[in-house]
Amino acid sequence: MRLVVPVSGSDPKTRLASVLSPDERRDFTEAMLADVVDAVTAAGHEPDVISTAPLDCAAPLTVDDRGLDPLVNDLLASIVTDGDGALAVVMADLPLVTPKSIERLLAPDADVVLAPGLGGGTNAFVCRHPEFRVDYHGASIRDHRQIARDVGASVTEVDSRRLATDIDEPGDLAEVLLHSDGAAADWLIDAGFSLSLTDGRVTVSRE
Amino acid sequence: MRLVVPVSGSDPKTRLASVLSPDERRDFTEAMLADVVDAVTAAGHEPDVISTAPLDCAAPLTVDDRGLDPLVNDLLASIVTDGDGALAVVMADLPLVTPKSIERLLAPDADVVLAPGLGGGTNAFVCRHPEFRVDYHGASIRDHRQIARDVGASVTEVDSRRLATDIDEPGDLAEVLLHSDGAAADWLIDAGFSLSLTDGRVTVSRE
Repeated sequence: MRLVVPVSGSDPKTRLASVLSPDERRDFTEAMLADVVDAVTAAGHEPDVISTAPLDCAAPLTVDDRGLDPLVNDLLASIVTDGDGALAVVMADLPLVTPKSIERLLAPDADVVLAPGLGGGTNAFVCRHPEFRVDYHGASIRDHRQIARDVGASVTEVDSRRLATDIDEPGDLAEVLLHSDGAAADWLIDAGFSLSLTDGRVTVSRE
Repeated sequence: MRLVVPVSGSDPKTRLASVLSPDERRDFTEAMLADVVDAVTAAGHEPDVISTAPLDCAAPLTVDDRGLDPLVNDLLASIVTDGDGALAVVMADLPLVTPKSIERLLAPDADVVLAPGLGGGTNAFVCRHPEFRVDYHGASIRDHRQIARDVGASVTEVDSRRLATDIDEPGDLAEVLLHSDGAAADWLIDAGFSLSLTDGRVTVSRE
């Protein structure tokens, strides 16, 4: 099983621009990546990080500035189709992941294992089927279910809040403070963020 | 194990008022409740629904207009403290739940099992400890962890996106259309809602 963590290293996390400067967004991206790398490593796997630009990272990092679809589809072609192997892809903006949630992703024996993200994304997957390919645009979880069906692959989904919680928007930051004590949570606390209680869901405020 | 589903039947889901009329909010509440009752029943349990006002429901329904904290704490006192039994409480606005996610909630042997909701809530829990009580205000998941620790209860959390996804705001409706084909999803489709693709997360629009 090859496990790849793709990450956008050049001007990352633009939807956090209202609360973080460009330098802070890069630093926070590195902190989230560190949490993912730590969880994968603690689960007994060796992650390969592929970034669009250089980033600080404790795992082997390759710079590849292609978009996510051509990058991942090339990996699927070389590792699964031609190499007869299995590929796992785990996004880098999942600071809530734990070794156990990584194990749950890797456990099922299906041709394609999908971990849905909030809002229709696909935050992680495992592929053992030579014809499955990705299309991350739009409601990708729907497209990935359909692509898997179209090629006759068996599909299962992992029901994990930790794998589902990608951090894209200011409203997502509360999840990091509520459910993690890793590098991303530490970074947010050091940057002055704390939980803020409103009538509805908990949000964050900054000093 | 007694399993209770509390529901607000009087002017429910006010945070959906921008997209649903009062009558529609009550109908949609009944549809979400039906999904929860179906999942619990299919998992082999008999849910007791307790509503602040009369609602249509396939399970036994009691009307009790107290707030959530006194209601649930009275149940904890009578069923767990005095009755030496176990109580599970599952919120009614979780239309993504499946029999399997209910089984995952009920499986752990801990004194207190918590299922966090998005935004700091506690969407479901199981209690077998006589001193545990609830406080649903604010970031309740943090409070419930602390209350459990304070009384010396063993605690575990269920990592489930389906249990975490409570439907409170218009932005949550997409999750129902993306991940369910139950009564709530049918109701939304009949009411003219469909998925709407934007640059970020998928949302819904209405005809």
